[in-house]
Amino acid sequence: MTASPIARPGARALVRGLADSKIREVANPFMADPEIIRLWFGEPDLPTPQFICDAAAKAMSAGKTYYVPSLGVPELRHAIAEYQSTIKGRPIGPERIVVTASGMSAIQLVVQLLVDPGDAVTTTSPLWPNVSEAARLAGAQVELIEMSVEDGRWSLDMQKVADAIARRPKMLFINSPCNPTGWMMTAAEQQAVLGLCRRHGVWLVVDEVYERIVFEADHAPSVLSIAEPDDRVIGVNSFSKNWSMTGWRLGWLVVPTDLTDDLAKLTEYNTASAASFVQWAGITAIKDGEPFVAKQVERLRCGRDLVHQRLAANPRIRISKPEGALYAFFAVDGMKDSLAFATRLAGEHKVGLAPGIAFGPGGEGHLRLCFASEAETLSRALDRLEHALGR
Amino acid sequence: MTASPIARPGARALVRGLADSKIREVANPFMADPEIIRLWFGEPDLPTPQFICDAAAKAMSAGKTYYVPSLGVPELRHAIAEYQSTIKGRPIGPERIVVTASGMSAIQLVVQLLVDPGDAVTTTSPLWPNVSEAARLAGAQVELIEMSVEDGRWSLDMQKVADAIARRPKMLFINSPCNPTGWMMTAAEQQAVLGLCRRHGVWLVVDEVYERIVFEADHAPSVLSIAEPDDRVIGVNSFSKNWSMTGWRLGWLVVPTDLTDDLAKLTEYNTASAASFVQWAGITAIKDGEPFVAKQVERLRCGRDLVHQRLAANPRIRISKPEGALYAFFAVDGMKDSLAFATRLAGEHKVGLAPGIAFGPGGEGHLRLCFASEAETLSRALDRLEHALGR
Repeated sequence: MTASPIARPGARALVRGLADSKIREVANPFMADPEIIRLWFGEPDLPTPQFICDAAAKAMSAGKTYYVPSLGVPELRHAIAEYQSTIKGRPIGPERIVVTASGMSAIQLVVQLLVDPGDAVTTTSPLWPNVSEAARLAGAQVELIEMSVEDGRWSLDMQKVADAIARRPKMLFINSPCNPTGWMMTAAEQQAVLGLCRRHGVWLVVDEVYERIVFEADHAPSVLSIAEPDDRVIGVNSFSKNWSMTGWRLGWLVVPTDLTDDLAKLTEYNTASAASFVQWAGITAIKDGEPFVAKQVERLRCGRDLVHQRLAANPRIRISKPEGALYAFFAVDGMKDSLAFATRLAGEHKVGLAPGIAFGPGGEGHLRLCFASEAETLSRALDRLEHALGR
Repeated sequence: MTASPIARPGARALVRGLADSKIREVANPFMADPEIIRLWFGEPDLPTPQFICDAAAKAMSAGKTYYVPSLGVPELRHAIAEYQSTIKGRPIGPERIVVTASGMSAIQLVVQLLVDPGDAVTTTSPLWPNVSEAARLAGAQVELIEMSVEDGRWSLDMQKVADAIARRPKMLFINSPCNPTGWMMTAAEQQAVLGLCRRHGVWLVVDEVYERIVFEADHAPSVLSIAEPDDRVIGVNSFSKNWSMTGWRLGWLVVPTDLTDDLAKLTEYNTASAASFVQWAGITAIKDGEPFVAKQVERLRCGRDLVHQRLAANPRIRISKPEGALYAFFAVDGMKDSLAFATRLAGEHKVGLAPGIAFGPGGEGHLRLCFASEAETLSRALDRLEHALGR
């Protein structure tokens, strides 16, 4: 044994096998190109409102620069609990709130909490790819429920969902409103899925980071509005989209009370907490940010309508109208390789879109355009896209 | 199968089995007690210098509130690379720097990168407990090399180290200067350990968060000063201690170049990045923070000397003089249960120390006192401790 040659150790095979972002694969070669109109990432184009920045600066200067409890600053946990109670229409106590260092970190913590190697994790597809990769990092088998467009609307086949839950995965992960499709789960679908998960003892994890970015209501329907406090339901959320705080890395979980202690350990052994003064700024965002949220949604509605109208009029394009989130996700007739097509769009036509394949096999044949930009920018991008499509 | 009752699912058994912090166990009942002198946590008592807060506020107002690359803001990676090249006395390029959302997050990422379930992870003991718990979360078997006090100095038995490395764990984790013991590994010991790790194909992970908090030199000796860029060596570091930035959650890794791509994936699937303007403030901390680091070390030297002198004079106490870090770690004759003793100290004598058992079995019989406080505060705490010890 000691005489054998020693293999030079490297990263785990499982980590080497994780996917790189195919959005990054398209975008990276062009990051320094000033001509490109960048609609490939999922981010509001407005900077964080100054009143939130001021709150962070004030907290820093007041000495809020020390360690804070791993579950989060108590005042922020209270503010989130009040906010979520209002949105959900039922009381959610601060003892059920775990502050996280981003929505992504919240998902990572849930996976660490629930998923043993070899467990099955079921989610819908197409979907933001980080969810599947976080599950694979934990050694999970990821099973996808393919969605399809029915009568011009993205749709989840409830028979497929029932079959998937009956196979008893460790968790079912649902992102609604959905990145990239803009699909929004109905309250009736949520009631049905919750009932199935209860019956089969399956964790239901709902990613609600776009719950306020909806165009026909104040907020999206939520499983947390109908679940009991001890239901096996976990909500994932984030400050990134509502308050233009992507760079702040602040999110939260709503969990059954019996999970709080274990999550305190997991946050301690991951990031220990989100940054202290960032958490204090989060309180201000929640308390004083409603006018900004309302303004942001109106801007996004303009962007959505403009983009949808133009794309729907193009004979090579099929698109369903997004009900929420920041994206137009559309099929292009004759486009078989979205990665190659998006790369050509960027290189030759100077418009940066995300390739559908980045969101799983079910996304192939599609492109994703983030409409969180000024109308003038969106119009120029659409001109270039239409030119590329030969119109 | 479907007829059997469905077990109500919970957190993973592995997560439920992780240890809570025994420091928290002592401190939590007394968090609201205004009389307690709090020397139980490991944190500089000074708030973050205003010039660093100003840099963050300026970055926010300049719109540095968006997503940044998952490996970190390029300008910060360059600043850290230059800083580390100076400290280590050999060139370390920015392509080897990964910005993380805290030193803890850096350790978590290294474990995710290298450790498969069932792998062995070897470290020294007593040690800050989060390292072992992060490894256990990954399913690792943790093996401890017990340190002991020889000739009044904490000491690592190099024969034990050689034997441990020959058993070929996945990684050897060394924290020097060490929390809690204040032990500092010598350059000769580092050379020997590096040679052994090379010979046996074992990753050497060095936690250097206290590398500037040393009392007889500008910085601690480092394996990174002697390792080649492609050696299987990873450095863990943090802004928390040097620049009083514990609440900011900013750290970094120095890695062999061939690991950078895999760490980009792991950061993306954990926190995506540290907060954007926090990273810009980090650049200012590095570039303009040397006078603050010098002042902080002098303050800590005063605290160390005061505490060491008083404790060494107590007949019930055995202590070795800390060579680095923020802590006096001392044995109390006749104290068998450090958790009970520390709880009694807090409750009856109003002085908050960390129980030695929090740092592993080898820490039992000891207490940890963080000397990052004003002399007057430290003196009052020592008065109370001496009173409790019956002097």
